[in-house]
Amino acid sequence: MRRIVLKISGKIIDHQKTDLIKRYGEVIRRIYESGDKIAVVTGGGEIARSYIRACRELTSNESFCDLMGIEISRINALLLAGVLEDLAYGRIPRDIDQFLEAWSTGRVVVLGGIQPGQSTSAVAAAIAELIRADFLIYLTIVRGVYDRDPSQPDAVLLREVDIDMLENILSKQSFVAGGYELIDPVAIKIIKRSRINTFVTYGYDPENIMRILSGEIIGTRITYRL
Amino acid sequence: MRRIVLKISGKIIDHQKTDLIKRYGEVIRRIYESGDKIAVVTGGGEIARSYIRACRELTSNESFCDLMGIEISRINALLLAGVLEDLAYGRIPRDIDQFLEAWSTGRVVVLGGIQPGQSTSAVAAAIAELIRADFLIYLTIVRGVYDRDPSQPDAVLLREVDIDMLENILSKQSFVAGGYELIDPVAIKIIKRSRINTFVTYGYDPENIMRILSGEIIGTRITYRL
Amino acid sequence: MRRIVLKISGKIIDHQKTDLIKRYGEVIRRIYESGDKIAVVTGGGEIARSYIRACRELTSNESFCDLMGIEISRINALLLAGVLEDLAYGRIPRDIDQFLEAWSTGRVVVLGGIQPGQSTSAVAAAIAELIRADFLIYLTIVRGVYDRDPSQPDAVLLREVDIDMLENILSKQSFVAGGYELIDPVAIKIIKRSRINTFVTYGYDPENIMRILSGEIIGTRITYRL
Amino acid sequence: MRRIVLKISGKIIDHQKTDLIKRYGEVIRRIYESGDKIAVVTGGGEIARSYIRACRELTSNESFCDLMGIEISRINALLLAGVLEDLAYGRIPRDIDQFLEAWSTGRVVVLGGIQPGQSTSAVAAAIAELIRADFLIYLTIVRGVYDRDPSQPDAVLLREVDIDMLENILSKQSFVAGGYELIDPVAIKIIKRSRINTFVTYGYDPENIMRILSGEIIGTRITYRL
Amino acid sequence: MRRIVLKISGKIIDHQKTDLIKRYGEVIRRIYESGDKIAVVTGGGEIARSYIRACRELTSNESFCDLMGIEISRINALLLAGVLEDLAYGRIPRDIDQFLEAWSTGRVVVLGGIQPGQSTSAVAAAIAELIRADFLIYLTIVRGVYDRDPSQPDAVLLREVDIDMLENILSKQSFVAGGYELIDPVAIKIIKRSRINTFVTYGYDPENIMRILSGEIIGTRITYRL
Amino acid sequence: MRRIVLKISGKIIDHQKTDLIKRYGEVIRRIYESGDKIAVVTGGGEIARSYIRACRELTSNESFCDLMGIEISRINALLLAGVLEDLAYGRIPRDIDQFLEAWSTGRVVVLGGIQPGQSTSAVAAAIAELIRADFLIYLTIVRGVYDRDPSQPDAVLLREVDIDMLENILSKQSFVAGGYELIDPVAIKIIKRSRINTFVTYGYDPENIMRILSGEIIGTRITYRL
Repeated sequence: MRRIVLKISGKIIDHQKTDLIKRYGEVIRRIYESGDKIAVVTGGGEIARSYIRACRELTSNESFCDLMGIEISRINALLLAGVLEDLAYGRIPRDIDQFLEAWSTGRVVVLGGIQPGQSTSAVAAAIAELIRADFLIYLTIVRGVYDRDPSQPDAVLLREVDIDMLENILSKQSFVAGGYELIDPVAIKIIKRSRINTFVTYGYDPENIMRILSGEIIGTRITYRL
Repeated sequence: MRRIVLKISGKIIDHQKTDLIKRYGEVIRRIYESGDKIAVVTGGGEIARSYIRACRELTSNESFCDLMGIEISRINALLLAGVLEDLAYGRIPRDIDQFLEAWSTGRVVVLGGIQPGQSTSAVAAAIAELIRADFLIYLTIVRGVYDRDPSQPDAVLLREVDIDMLENILSKQSFVAGGYELIDPVAIKIIKRSRINTFVTYGYDPENIMRILSGEIIGTRITYRL
Repeated sequence: MRRIVLKISGKIIDHQKTDLIKRYGEVIRRIYESGDKIAVVTGGGEIARSYIRACRELTSNESFCDLMGIEISRINALLLAGVLEDLAYGRIPRDIDQFLEAWSTGRVVVLGGIQPGQSTSAVAAAIAELIRADFLIYLTIVRGVYDRDPSQPDAVLLREVDIDMLENILSKQSFVAGGYELIDPVAIKIIKRSRINTFVTYGYDPENIMRILSGEIIGTRITYRL
Repeated sequence: MRRIVLKISGKIIDHQKTDLIKRYGEVIRRIYESGDKIAVVTGGGEIARSYIRACRELTSNESFCDLMGIEISRINALLLAGVLEDLAYGRIPRDIDQFLEAWSTGRVVVLGGIQPGQSTSAVAAAIAELIRADFLIYLTIVRGVYDRDPSQPDAVLLREVDIDMLENILSKQSFVAGGYELIDPVAIKIIKRSRINTFVTYGYDPENIMRILSGEIIGTRITYRL
Repeated sequence: MRRIVLKISGKIIDHQKTDLIKRYGEVIRRIYESGDKIAVVTGGGEIARSYIRACRELTSNESFCDLMGIEISRINALLLAGVLEDLAYGRIPRDIDQFLEAWSTGRVVVLGGIQPGQSTSAVAAAIAELIRADFLIYLTIVRGVYDRDPSQPDAVLLREVDIDMLENILSKQSFVAGGYELIDPVAIKIIKRSRINTFVTYGYDPENIMRILSGEIIGTRITYRL
Repeated sequence: MRRIVLKISGKIIDHQKTDLIKRYGEVIRRIYESGDKIAVVTGGGEIARSYIRACRELTSNESFCDLMGIEISRINALLLAGVLEDLAYGRIPRDIDQFLEAWSTGRVVVLGGIQPGQSTSAVAAAIAELIRADFLIYLTIVRGVYDRDPSQPDAVLLREVDIDMLENILSKQSFVAGGYELIDPVAIKIIKRSRINTFVTYGYDPENIMRILSGEIIGTRITYRL
């Protein structure tokens, strides 16, 4: 039995991409039926951004607008839970205590964000650490970690990246809008302190999860120095 | 001190209509500061419908898809709570128990749906009954209750409508799509048994609330036989 | 594995009929041990009515008095859970979220009402839809659905009844007091939209559940047009 | 502002004594409006006993049957909350955490039992200690503490009783059935360690509360040695 | 399958005795893997006492200071849950309702205190009764129940003690400080009314649990008259 | 009415420093009675560290050990709430939703940590942003922000520090053990994006809070570029 945490970008688990959600459902079902345990964190995506924009016109309270994004990420989680039917725990946990309750039942647990000022990538890392995950897989809109801005023609996809180098790459890339937002510093800190077995891969193909679980490196693996 | 319940259509409290949300915020603030107590129920609107459509592609579970719509109606509630700032109770109640807790603090309580298979119009009626509301106002995209399908040229806006006649009008109108969905049978049943002082009015002008509270009949008033 | 929802009238699950409760316990145990999953909704019965009467002398708040009835239906649920011992989930869920949590554990979940203005027959339908029940069985004090008031000498028990005809029959029967209250309009709406495989049978004989599950029609089966 | 805890016997707050409940409502309203803060604990009474008897026929689990009694005591609390309307906190707290939340709103908090194996008289003492109550008043079916079994002709009502003597009197009186059950040892322990200003009085006359609050000794006052 | 409740003294499950906690973890794992179900209640110990002392310097509110001790007992529960990893339910239940939820998942449930004015020995008895435990084992710093103060040279360890005699022994021993505090009167009452199969044994050797489960009497067994 | 968030180091709110806790209680009482609203976040301090060390001997699960520290920080919060008596909300909120509920009552809200992998300094910043705090004051064991390691002889206390420079200073100082841990990067990010009016001051003198609120700069003020 392995413990697996998936973080799926909100641009991928999106209510306008139901086919992709179905395919995720099938992959998760296969993993679950093979005896592994899975938690999935979904991001907020475009709808989240559009609610956050609306929120900012109404209040200058950034935390409050974060709550909007969190609620949308939870609805995305609900979409995925819907396709998983009985496999999934019946509720979307809203905090760590509720996550632990859900996890104790042995079901697939799907959740979104938890708290203002915290990215869903950090939620995924925190949960992976808490359940001692064997795999933490970030499913994103790019193919993995690049040595520079992936939109540049000479950007090279890295098969492996040392956690410190990743921290460095991410801190230099301020091209937030439309760019990475892959893994934020809190996630990095947690992944690093517990040396979590972490991958970044292309999320439009859910089969990448199976490939990574069977030992292939699709995308980028995070490595740790001795 | 009067107790007021507003039900605002999800087509009106919509994240793409932030100006209107602001105006609702101002009206609610004025009412609150005059010493009245207010609960507001928001509907789901277009985004809810679009998530429900996505859900139906993923599962045949109608209740589950209702949950989607409920979550969106709660995010709409959050938008309105955001503009109300400290006036509003800090959370969106998810059930009647939580609503009662929130109401006990004296703040404006904003909420969305509560349970699958139940409309937000029924939630508003249930809450109005529970807190013994002096006013229950449905803010909709039409100007009130008409004697027939309001899209017909000869439809007449009724200034008053007997609850039994309303029941009759609504049951005959099966033009659901784009039409009324004003007040569902559960709401009617509750309004009727407690003879709640209920109005249906045009929601794109929040000042209509003030007008109704000061004794004008803007839209339609529901009446009860002796 | 089949999913079964039972709605047992509060006149049947009654603290003065412990023998009957025991027999329900045995039937539910047999079903559970055969591998099926079960949720049970219990009604309020006479004690509920007597608390509601007391409540009405104290307050004109109908919703509040509904809460009384709901609490009694939950105590009836507790009685049944007591006889089921470890088979039953340890708590009586108080809302849909708690129901889903309970259902995720795989135990028999027993609950009463949920919300003012909503009958326990509607709760059963909502839950049946939510868990995609294979059977929804209403256990009542009459033998099924009759073509007219069952107290009339020429009333005929229907073996099958189309959902629209049922709606019609129930709407014509206003002989509420002591009569049906079988299935309210909200329950009908849910059963209809999801074409739930629904039966109405005589609840004083719990073996009727086994008979229905093995394919017999005891009482009335609800049918749907193409 | 004084803090007052009332413990009202379930034989007094009983759904067949709505007039008495109304009179309690009026007295509590007067106290509240004078600026004092009040928590009320209600017992289970006859209905509780009758559910407990039913429970014992179904299971040998005494704790489980206690839960039955606790639920009935909560419904009694709901009856009293119903007559208090807006004065009362909207929910019946189910544990100490929920009580503290409720108390923080400044409303009258009404509750029943909390936990199997614990009497409502102990709940009242625990709450009185927690909120540093100025008065803890036990409203019972007898006129106060007697020097022996109050059903004996020569039993003398004590105007004051030392806490140690009370402990002694109660421990000798094993005539539980129909007798005292006034204050159990856990309640005594708490009252004693915090020297809570405690009274036992006749509950069929709610005005006794006013009398005690204004300095009269109606019934028995508990005293403490230096 | 047997149901076992352990009450471990806070002096034993102490963050400065991690080796002992590990050994408890191993014993509990063996029992769990043999198919039995286990709940564990941990006490507060020295740290609890030191927080309670601090609390008393800040407030005269004894209940509030009890809450301190309860929170520390929960942290001790967390330590034990930590070493049990996936075997343990993911949260420390804070009340009986949460305990029942946790117990329904089939995991080992570890908890501390629940309510002010109530000892963890009473919590253990209440839980043992609620789940119909086959064994309730008190793991203490002494070797069992003695016929008098165990610090006296001629104190004799009793292999069996009648519940009434135990009650008598404990009531006579007021040498609280540093002495027994074994089992308080509430625990005695519960154990007695349900004739729970109860043992008191030496907690510094967790293997004593295995010995008792396999039929040996290590320490003292509580007996009941016919 | 101003909104004030205090973050008090766990080394200061410590159960062995009850005099200091009392003085904090008095200062908070004065602020509250002047009409301002206050939330207080307490750290974990030495006891937290000692539990975390114990936890690490039991499990390699860092998140789990964080939970230990969080629970201790909540007990410290409880100590402070104890001395505040009725001024403080009756519970220690365990997540953001509970915080918002508590804040809605108008009481002083005291809390500890919320989530593994997140410092209490970040909790304070998140809450300050969420309630639109007018002041966020970090009460630490040093006198403010220094231009280098404060233990160095030539370290200069800065009266003002630009947020970017602060970020820079903190990132260079890796002398974690015994040193700053003042404000972590997540806190910096939140403070910066909402330009929260933030101070760092010496926590052993609670009067510093009053001084800062009245316009003095005691310690260091964080500044923002245009």
